[in-house]
This record gives sequence, C-alpha cells and structure tokens, in this order.
Amino acid sequence: MSRFRVAIHIVPRKGILDPQGKAVADALHALGFSAVAEARVGRHLVLDVDAASADAATASARTMCDKLLANPVTEDYEIAGVVAA
Amino acid sequence: MSRFRVAIHIVPRKGILDPQGKAVADALHALGFSAVAEARVGRHLVLDVDAASADAATASARTMCDKLLANPVTEDYEIAGVVAA
Repeated sequence: MSRFRVAIHIVPRKGILDPQGKAVADALHALGFSAVAEARVGRHLVLDVDAASADAATASARTMCDKLLANPVTEDYEIAGVVAA
Repeated sequence: MSRFRVAIHIVPRKGILDPQGKAVADALHALGFSAVAEARVGRHLVLDVDAASADAATASARTMCDKLLANPVTEDYEIAGVVAA
C-alpha cells in the first residue's frame, strides 16, 4: 500500500447554467478585465488515498465521484492527476 | 489577439483549517472509503481570455487572482494550464 495524491476537477456540465461563473465574469468586467469572454467555476479536490497502485487510486477516486463527490445530473468530473504522496 | 483558456486552482492555504475538505473526508469514510487519509477542497476556474500571447493571458489571470478571485489571507492559487481556445 502506498499513498497517492489524486486531483479531481468537478465542473458544471456544458450547456448547464453556471451562475457562479457568470457572477465571476461580471465581477471581472466591473473591475476592468474586459478581455474575459467566459468564466466557469467548478471544484478542485485533492484526495490522499492509500492504494496498491496509481491505477487503483484512480479507480477508487472515480467510484467516490460517482457515489458522492459529483452530481451526475449537473456536473462532469475528470481525474486531473495522480502522484505518489 | 487570440483567445486562451486559462485553468486556475485556488486552494485553502496549507495549515489553514479546511472544513469543506474535512466534511468530504468524513462523508467518504461514512460511505466505506476508509483509504482516504485527507481531502482538500478548492475551486477550479476556467477563464476564456483574449490576449496577445499565452504569457500575457497568464499574467492577466494572475492579476485577476490577486485582485478578486483568491483571498490572499486564506488561499493559494496556481495557474494550472493555458491552452489556445
């Protein structure tokens, strides 16, 4: 068993309204950052997981996303990276 | 001017209490994922920025983080990636 650090991105599904992203874009425009065309806001999770291999840690993280971390109706997730911790 | 997609991670500063991460870890344990030693929860932002170059887009995103997106007292940010959009 080794410990792996798994990074996960959970973002609003494309086509679904992202009010937080809209608020961020509006606030950036109000501050003068007119070059920002769009902003989307999701969650960045970092889990320290004990597993036999990086692949096992990734599989475990996917199960956690399916069961708890991501809302399958409104959100997409991706495993952004796995490194030995 | 081209459009660049800048990904930003904003995470609670190390040593600062992360109640959302604690709640996620506790919930995962309650669901039987005892292999999770720690969880940290931050924000994952994706900005579409018009800029002359990828470096300019990165610099612009850093300024946005300093001025609005990240709380300098409690959070660290990093520019996770810049790609042509």
